Amino acid sequence: MLMPRHLQTAARAVIVLLAVALSPIAATAQTDPLPSWNDTAPKAAIVEFVEKVTKEGSADFVAEPERIAVFDNDGTLWTEHPMYVQLAFALDRVRAEALNHPEWKTTQPFKAALDGDMKALAAAGQKGLMELIMATHAGMTTDEFQKVVADWITTARDPRFKKPYTDLVYQPMLELLSYLRANGFKTFIVSGGGIELMRPWTERVYGVPPEQVVGSSIKTQFEMKDGTPTLFRLPQVNFIDDKAGKPVGINEHIGRKPIAAFGNSDGDLEMLQWTTMAPGARFGLIVHHTDAEREYAYDRDTEFGRLDKALDAAAVNSWTVVDMKADWKKVFPGD
Amino acid sequence: MLMPRHLQTAARAVIVLLAVALSPIAATAQTDPLPSWNDTAPKAAIVEFVEKVTKEGSADFVAEPERIAVFDNDGTLWTEHPMYVQLAFALDRVRAEALNHPEWKTTQPFKAALDGDMKALAAAGQKGLMELIMATHAGMTTDEFQKVVADWITTARDPRFKKPYTDLVYQPMLELLSYLRANGFKTFIVSGGGIELMRPWTERVYGVPPEQVVGSSIKTQFEMKDGTPTLFRLPQVNFIDDKAGKPVGINEHIGRKPIAAFGNSDGDLEMLQWTTMAPGARFGLIVHHTDAEREYAYDRDTEFGRLDKALDAAAVNSWTVVDMKADWKKVFPGD
Repeated sequence: MLMPRHLQTAARAVIVLLAVALSPIAATAQTDPLPSWNDTAPKAAIVEFVEKVTKEGSADFVAEPERIAVFDNDGTLWTEHPMYVQLAFALDRVRAEALNHPEWKTTQPFKAALDGDMKALAAAGQKGLMELIMATHAGMTTDEFQKVVADWITTARDPRFKKPYTDLVYQPMLELLSYLRANGFKTFIVSGGGIELMRPWTERVYGVPPEQVVGSSIKTQFEMKDGTPTLFRLPQVNFIDDKAGKPVGINEHIGRKPIAAFGNSDGDLEMLQWTTMAPGARFGLIVHHTDAEREYAYDRDTEFGRLDKALDAAAVNSWTVVDMKADWKKVFPGD
Repeated sequence: MLMPRHLQTAARAVIVLLAVALSPIAATAQTDPLPSWNDTAPKAAIVEFVEKVTKEGSADFVAEPERIAVFDNDGTLWTEHPMYVQLAFALDRVRAEALNHPEWKTTQPFKAALDGDMKALAAAGQKGLMELIMATHAGMTTDEFQKVVADWITTARDPRFKKPYTDLVYQPMLELLSYLRANGFKTFIVSGGGIELMRPWTERVYGVPPEQVVGSSIKTQFEMKDGTPTLFRLPQVNFIDDKAGKPVGINEHIGRKPIAAFGNSDGDLEMLQWTTMAPGARFGLIVHHTDAEREYAYDRDTEFGRLDKALDAAAVNSWTVVDMKADWKKVFPGD
């Protein structure tokens, strides 16, 4: 059939719409947008919030451009145990670069990294961690670092499940991201982790494009190199997007206050406060890791993703707390 | 007529689509998306670029998420003479706050600001300008500053046209922003000016939401104030989004390389290089201020918006140069 292209398109659309219009079943049988969530309180709270802010004419209605939702990454969208993925990345990079740095064999925290001595690493503290990151995340162009990350994220496997880290994202949270976007929300990641460690894969895995990722960063410098413009990564901290830094990062990158925030640890406390302690309909949610069998169980006493002050604040501020074991049918997409 | 809502919606859509399908005129008579552009080389170059990157199957096709376009603001989207709007704002703020600062009467650069002594102000240089900005842009919360800006932008008038600054935006560039967005581009502002001086009005005036505005900034600090979370603006430079800072700002906020960049001065040189000196279809454009009658005429010899190195680079890099007088039918929306 030779029909002009615009007629073909329109005809197809008409057929589809007639089919929908004439089939009461197709139109009324709504598919559950959150199938991996049990029918417990958190799911009901999410749906209630989304329905009220999207209902035109309601007192709680929020115009689409203002529907900003922010998500922490480590422990909220993907697994952060037995250690932050960024630390696993840094340790792998130290091993990969060790031949070029014979001095690392005898210098901390590099020796600890090479020996896999987690106790010595923990003892090196925040300062040691920053040293590892500076040594492994800087000294190359942004394009080169992006390639290192993209390669690593496809080949690295976590120690317990032996899966790529991007398989250890939470299926219920993927559904939540999609559900919010289907309701006119713009979804942002606001992570304490390195911004450039996330951007190469967040669009594919979470549907969140690079320009909607906020995170910690090191300084970069513009340089013309053999006639080609490059950004060179310097071993200097630019911004730490954690704790009180999260509202700062949100303001800098987004420029308006979110109406919904999702986190899992004390690093998310100020982001949750900034988002929810304001007029109008607001939503705060904390993922509580309670499922040692399917994932991990931890809260007030852990090195990675401590949830203590923010758990107390959840009760005071009426934030929704997800009990992973009770509220999630499924944890990972592959379950 | 009592029809279930989904039937109503579908019926409406069917009617609209049938109307389109049955009317060859509606589908073929294209309206010119750039009516304020003369039919000279720049318009042809813009249209040619947009058509080739949006044509599926073509060698130059660019997928929608990668269609990032960056625009300078001062002198590219709105007028920057006789002085940057940010300087006019700072001078107005100094006058408004003078009673609370008796010392300003005898201290430079404040004395020059109060006396309207542009020569002394120019002599105070970059350092003096920063002092003015710190004194007038900091020392309050982000919410307070936003209100100051929103009030000022509606009441302030430029000295020559006696119009609000937001009326002195370029109609051809507004059309270009819309044309790009209609073709799947995401449009960002990347300005040397203060990020929070733009965000309160860019969505209304340019259709660019706050999260797509990149600019210079001062540091902010999260504080709980009487139980309310606030961000307090500190008198410390956070980031200067100018010259070699622009690619840095683009990388930090957008996280991918734009495919089109629009500027007007040497402050945009590195942004244009970063955008265009890369593989694939790329587009660079410079607005050359050549119209003293309708706007201003300046290039190599001016305090505000000097265009010297970037004009030479335009020839080398085949960037499109808009001759405002010859290429634009209209300058401002009100013309």
